[in-house]
Amino acid sequence: MRVYFDNAATTAMDDRVIEAMIPYMKEHYGNPSSVHSHGREVRTAIERARKKVAELLNASPSEIFFTSGGTEADNTAIVCGIDTHGIQHAITSPIEHHAVLHTLEHCAKKGKIKLSMVNVNEMGEIDQQHLESLLKENPNSLVSLMHANNEIGNINDLKAIGSLAKEYGAFFHSDTVQTMGHYTHDLKTLPVDSIVAGGHKFHGPKGSGFLYVKKDKKIHPFIFGGAQERNMRGGTENVIGIVGITKALELAYEDMHGHRTHIEALKKHFISSLKQQFPEVRFNGHSADMEKSLYTVLNVSLPHSEDNSGMLLFNLDLNGISASGGSACSSGATVGSHVLRTLKADPNRESVRFSFSRFNTIEDVDYTVEKLKELYGVTV
Amino acid sequence: MRVYFDNAATTAMDDRVIEAMIPYMKEHYGNPSSVHSHGREVRTAIERARKKVAELLNASPSEIFFTSGGTEADNTAIVCGIDTHGIQHAITSPIEHHAVLHTLEHCAKKGKIKLSMVNVNEMGEIDQQHLESLLKENPNSLVSLMHANNEIGNINDLKAIGSLAKEYGAFFHSDTVQTMGHYTHDLKTLPVDSIVAGGHKFHGPKGSGFLYVKKDKKIHPFIFGGAQERNMRGGTENVIGIVGITKALELAYEDMHGHRTHIEALKKHFISSLKQQFPEVRFNGHSADMEKSLYTVLNVSLPHSEDNSGMLLFNLDLNGISASGGSACSSGATVGSHVLRTLKADPNRESVRFSFSRFNTIEDVDYTVEKLKELYGVTV
Repeated sequence: MRVYFDNAATTAMDDRVIEAMIPYMKEHYGNPSSVHSHGREVRTAIERARKKVAELLNASPSEIFFTSGGTEADNTAIVCGIDTHGIQHAITSPIEHHAVLHTLEHCAKKGKIKLSMVNVNEMGEIDQQHLESLLKENPNSLVSLMHANNEIGNINDLKAIGSLAKEYGAFFHSDTVQTMGHYTHDLKTLPVDSIVAGGHKFHGPKGSGFLYVKKDKKIHPFIFGGAQERNMRGGTENVIGIVGITKALELAYEDMHGHRTHIEALKKHFISSLKQQFPEVRFNGHSADMEKSLYTVLNVSLPHSEDNSGMLLFNLDLNGISASGGSACSSGATVGSHVLRTLKADPNRESVRFSFSRFNTIEDVDYTVEKLKELYGVTV
Repeated sequence: MRVYFDNAATTAMDDRVIEAMIPYMKEHYGNPSSVHSHGREVRTAIERARKKVAELLNASPSEIFFTSGGTEADNTAIVCGIDTHGIQHAITSPIEHHAVLHTLEHCAKKGKIKLSMVNVNEMGEIDQQHLESLLKENPNSLVSLMHANNEIGNINDLKAIGSLAKEYGAFFHSDTVQTMGHYTHDLKTLPVDSIVAGGHKFHGPKGSGFLYVKKDKKIHPFIFGGAQERNMRGGTENVIGIVGITKALELAYEDMHGHRTHIEALKKHFISSLKQQFPEVRFNGHSADMEKSLYTVLNVSLPHSEDNSGMLLFNLDLNGISASGGSACSSGATVGSHVLRTLKADPNRESVRFSFSRFNTIEDVDYTVEKLKELYGVTV
């Protein structure tokens, strides 16, 4: 049996997404910037996609820009947000994804901004009072705080953070890579200036993404080279990627409630089975709180075990179970996560992130718990 | 009949490329940064691809970085080349692609560099003496000059330019988007520090590309976010794009001579037919010189005609023929090309770029000449 429990790293593509992409590999190959018939039919597909994404997010098509993924979109919002709006101070948290952290750190290193870290407690919660004091001290800041954490699943209150940012005139960017396609985003009411998506996190293709930037917070391009994406991103469009991410988002919205119900049942079952079999089990961050965390992520902390020390992921892999130790970049290691370090997670315990999709089953959970029991020598 | 003569804008994908990509859409969906089995099988594909590209170009795998396309690769080489190597002066030409021109102009606008334009004559030739004097006056420059021009097809002598750049200690970047897959590049002997590719220019997928950077000229990442691409480009890899561009390059190298012979025959036939039917025909730049221009591009200048003034591309399109007025970004207009403006092309004549691939036939050429005759009211 093979179990894929690393859906926060990437998901399997939906067959219907592949089906939507194939005509743009086989038949419609024109360059969307060409005005002849070969180009026009492809341009139409891109603009139809943009309209569809905008419609699903309650935004305007002129606010949606397709990118090569969530990371490029994060880089664009941060680098060009700072540059275009003359921003000299940025606020983020130590548990952001590296697409945000490393980008801001580079900007700080280059002397473009001063960077402040908002305090985060051992549950992974942002200290809102500290955030407010940083905003008060630093007018015209950029705030970059993610919607949900990719390792522990904690969900931030974007309304509260966004309102605070707005009150102090900050540009508010949120890395929404883990929530896009799993939660609804109503951009008419959500107080954010920019958010992002990576198609492969919700059964779309890798190499696809988009950036939303609010109309009145326009930024200049990150990649120069042509008039593509309404002058916002040079380079011939990744047409199959655009068609793919859009179809994936459409499918996600079509039955979000159904998918959520299915996955929540898996997560609840996983939590209760673990609690039953491993009385000493803990969960990192708010991971086990169904309200405060992603329904797609469960970050499990198991007691120290001589046999599995630093080897648990490897041992799970040998049993056909793919999980991770944190973000994909460090999924081979149960130590080394900057998120777990910030939360002061006990390094002697074994932390494993299991992350789910609608393609997982109850059998996947039971099999995994069974194997964990074997690995830990738990007798029934 | 439908004729696609806009292959310098983009090409149709080869069926064998699509075939190579599909398993990475349907079966192998892991994140290449994950170390479990789902991830490893995908990581293997990426590293195999990198090795293959390096082998074809006679480079080291550690010098090849996959990107979202030629434009991102150009931006990376230029922005990060300047930044990493403390470069304060850059030299380019007024007929470069916008991926180079607009990027350098942005760097100049931001005060990072002073930008000099090397002189280009009415044939589109670079003034090498001027280049040398600019290099002499400005030590530690970045030189960005393309291998072949995308509009008029002129081929630059990379060996001569590169040797000059080397002599004066410059970083030499070349936009090789139009030659990659159509000419061989031996990076052990070619005196360049960085070159680029866009997969869709040689029957690979849009949204795929790569950047070569010479070992001893390492640059920092353009997109931050993770350890992907050996710490050179954050973001989950576009696996299907990487597999696709590599297969396309492999196929290109497999029978480059055959493709070239086939396309050269089309171009020669096109030139002689046009000369025969339109005694006043001219060709922009070195476009009609089989030695000095791309075999894939023919930039035709036809006499003024009341019926076709500003409408020739549109009229060709109505007859099922896709061609362009310059780069794809301006393919709807027979005026407005910055390249033709630099060459002081007569704005009263109709300039059309026809660009070819191995999928074109002699019938495509004959049909196009026939339609041009009709549009111009040429009687046989």
